[in-house]
Amino acid sequence: MLTKLEKELNKVLPRQNVMTSIEERYAYSFDASETQNAGSKIADAVVFAESTEEVLEVVKIANKLNVPIICRGAGTNTVGSCIPINGGIVLNFSKMNKILELNTQNMTIRVQPGVTVGEIQQIAQKNNLFYPPDPSNLKVSTIGGSIAQNSAGARCFKYGSTKNYVLDLKVVTANGEVISTGSNTVKNAVGYDLNSLFTGSEGTLGIVVEATLKLIPKPQETQVLMAYFEKIDNAVECVNKIIDQKIYPSTIDFMDKNALLTVEQFYHTGLLTDKECALLIEIDGDYESILKTKYNICQILNLNNAVNIQYSKNEQEAQNIWSARRSSMSACAKLKPNVTTDDIIVPRNNLAKLVKGVQEICDRHNLTSCLVGHVGDGSIHPQIPIDFSDKNEYRHYKQAKSEMYELAVSLGGTISGEHGIGLEKKAFISHVVESSALNYMRQIKKIFDPNNILNPYKIF
Amino acid sequence: MLTKLEKELNKVLPRQNVMTSIEERYAYSFDASETQNAGSKIADAVVFAESTEEVLEVVKIANKLNVPIICRGAGTNTVGSCIPINGGIVLNFSKMNKILELNTQNMTIRVQPGVTVGEIQQIAQKNNLFYPPDPSNLKVSTIGGSIAQNSAGARCFKYGSTKNYVLDLKVVTANGEVISTGSNTVKNAVGYDLNSLFTGSEGTLGIVVEATLKLIPKPQETQVLMAYFEKIDNAVECVNKIIDQKIYPSTIDFMDKNALLTVEQFYHTGLLTDKECALLIEIDGDYESILKTKYNICQILNLNNAVNIQYSKNEQEAQNIWSARRSSMSACAKLKPNVTTDDIIVPRNNLAKLVKGVQEICDRHNLTSCLVGHVGDGSIHPQIPIDFSDKNEYRHYKQAKSEMYELAVSLGGTISGEHGIGLEKKAFISHVVESSALNYMRQIKKIFDPNNILNPYKIF
Repeated sequence: MLTKLEKELNKVLPRQNVMTSIEERYAYSFDASETQNAGSKIADAVVFAESTEEVLEVVKIANKLNVPIICRGAGTNTVGSCIPINGGIVLNFSKMNKILELNTQNMTIRVQPGVTVGEIQQIAQKNNLFYPPDPSNLKVSTIGGSIAQNSAGARCFKYGSTKNYVLDLKVVTANGEVISTGSNTVKNAVGYDLNSLFTGSEGTLGIVVEATLKLIPKPQETQVLMAYFEKIDNAVECVNKIIDQKIYPSTIDFMDKNALLTVEQFYHTGLLTDKECALLIEIDGDYESILKTKYNICQILNLNNAVNIQYSKNEQEAQNIWSARRSSMSACAKLKPNVTTDDIIVPRNNLAKLVKGVQEICDRHNLTSCLVGHVGDGSIHPQIPIDFSDKNEYRHYKQAKSEMYELAVSLGGTISGEHGIGLEKKAFISHVVESSALNYMRQIKKIFDPNNILNPYKIF
Repeated sequence: MLTKLEKELNKVLPRQNVMTSIEERYAYSFDASETQNAGSKIADAVVFAESTEEVLEVVKIANKLNVPIICRGAGTNTVGSCIPINGGIVLNFSKMNKILELNTQNMTIRVQPGVTVGEIQQIAQKNNLFYPPDPSNLKVSTIGGSIAQNSAGARCFKYGSTKNYVLDLKVVTANGEVISTGSNTVKNAVGYDLNSLFTGSEGTLGIVVEATLKLIPKPQETQVLMAYFEKIDNAVECVNKIIDQKIYPSTIDFMDKNALLTVEQFYHTGLLTDKECALLIEIDGDYESILKTKYNICQILNLNNAVNIQYSKNEQEAQNIWSARRSSMSACAKLKPNVTTDDIIVPRNNLAKLVKGVQEICDRHNLTSCLVGHVGDGSIHPQIPIDFSDKNEYRHYKQAKSEMYELAVSLGGTISGEHGIGLEKKAFISHVVESSALNYMRQIKKIFDPNNILNPYKIF
């Protein structure tokens, strides 16, 4: 028998875009977070919108029946932001995946939320333009998800995060209006910055149905250096020296020994596995500039105890190095039935303490941790293979996570640089946001979503 | 006889930091906007805070007596944001002007709001670091004002506006709490982005008493090219060609014939005055890269009808070119008793239409206009010398302004890129922000300032 919700949805959406079987609802009730283990309630329905009008219809139904809406791109979220924790309609954007307009003269692109970050990067690149934010899963993760979580990635060091590229959003509000949050111009000083308020709000304030993004001129060349170290302190010292010398790489990324070992074990990419850690340094600019920068960086690396330095000789080799770095999560996934990644960040001067502290915490709890991260930003992603069904391991894992957050906070940092809060870090947000500031955030939520139908129970 | 307000203020602030004579109150009741002509009510008191604690005390008094607080940096605001339009306490930050901490390793600087943008740039530069936002009045304008208005400047083209550099603000709220809006880290995905909400909110949501800003590595070299054109279309064509060829200058600025003439008339900086317009193109990077980029840009300029190309041979020459560009406003001020500057912006592909349209509007209203602007961003500042006491001229001027905003909007642009709304553009905000979005902004204002004591009557 059809539920009332199903009947209403079938009235406004094509039949194939409304999924209500238990298998379908189950399949779309998880994301890449560990909340898949929490035995939460599943979605009441999964729908695929193909237009803004359809989204508006779904919002009407949600209001009428008082059912929450949980937006979903590719479901790569790592903190549970896409999970229908108390049921509701999972609103899937994979069919709203069109690039609506590329304006090369304005260097802007207008897209639907289901377009992947990789597609945006590709079309930009083909037109000598560049969309810098590069979450590791960019081949599948959507721009809608990037906007929801304010994704960043390795190139954030030089180029900033998603927020820096959002010029305008078309947003369906909880009460069923469509508003524009910005303008088509690269600067906008008109009223409060709704673009930035929505970016990173994890689907709790409105439903993004279109985004206009800023692009920049494509760097003429890109090269990647990879340097290995026997000591983490030496690697961190190199990062500081590079910055001291006015060198501005596009990325300074990091892999610890476990990450190197694990990737190499499963993917045989040629990483050295007998070193303590490695830095991946991407430099961009014109050819002559890169040559000089590379020379200067190599000098710093040599003078600061790098034990092996490799560099890409062409685009393919650069891609190979990045593929190795980006496959650390999937390599970790082969070690145990489950894998999680985290996201903590500190001021750069406390980076070595963070890395060593996280390693110590994981060792003490008998957990394997593969540490990768965007160390130029002071950001670390501890990737932890685990068997969730092992209750003792899970208990240690939860304790370790909690200790990692405390460590980051004690080092002047915070509990998320680019993944968001979702469900998984809710309990910790009060450690880094004062109660009065949190209270303002809750009031903002109430303004935009008075009936709490947009991704409820997340963040706070 | 002392007013009640004065008595209360004297209890909490040193006597010399409370000004209540009519002359003092009058002196601080204006800013660089034309609202000085509007005969508005003047401040009830002008106070200078020297600490967060003093700001908190002033807020207490404002709440007790229901008197508004209007924050003020250097008063260089061009839209009336600093004007106590219905009286109130002008809270001056010129004595909270300390650089609290420069952390070269983290590339962050923590400052009080009264520090000038120029001071931040200088101390950064001395430490091989770089604070890019560069409003033309940076020698006097404060970072508090920059944050209030989300200032940008010429280098926004490559480096973004103030917002892109705000990591954390310490804010005194209307109800007398101190909250932190961000973190000390370069990325932060924890809750809603209060940094960006406060940046550009024109002092209407809270009182910024401290800011932590992101710095970046200083470009190794900087050079400025200046190219003259007989036709505006040729200049705009060059801008497009430069971008097409993956060249990414730090600025692409513009002066029209009137601006060139006026600056040269008063400052004799060596500008050519028989050309229709000029582009100022600043490139940065290492020496080799600049050489190559300069060569490529010169080729584009030559192929696209630039009639004269000059370039700085050293830092001093670069400074001279910028001084000429930055003195256009003060040169204009010498033509008539008053001068105003405006700030409109369009998508870059409509730039030529905007420039020619603004010239046509001013001609039709018999107004002199000196057009300068950040054309890489599609942004134009029409500077208009005027005699406000000439009622007919003033009427035409107001009409011309209104037509300029309509023109910008009709070209897909907006009414402010970097100056804000304040009092002067309030009447036009509904032309670019939908009523429902404006309504959300008003509700946000109410959350943070329920009694409307923080810079009331501005923006909306």
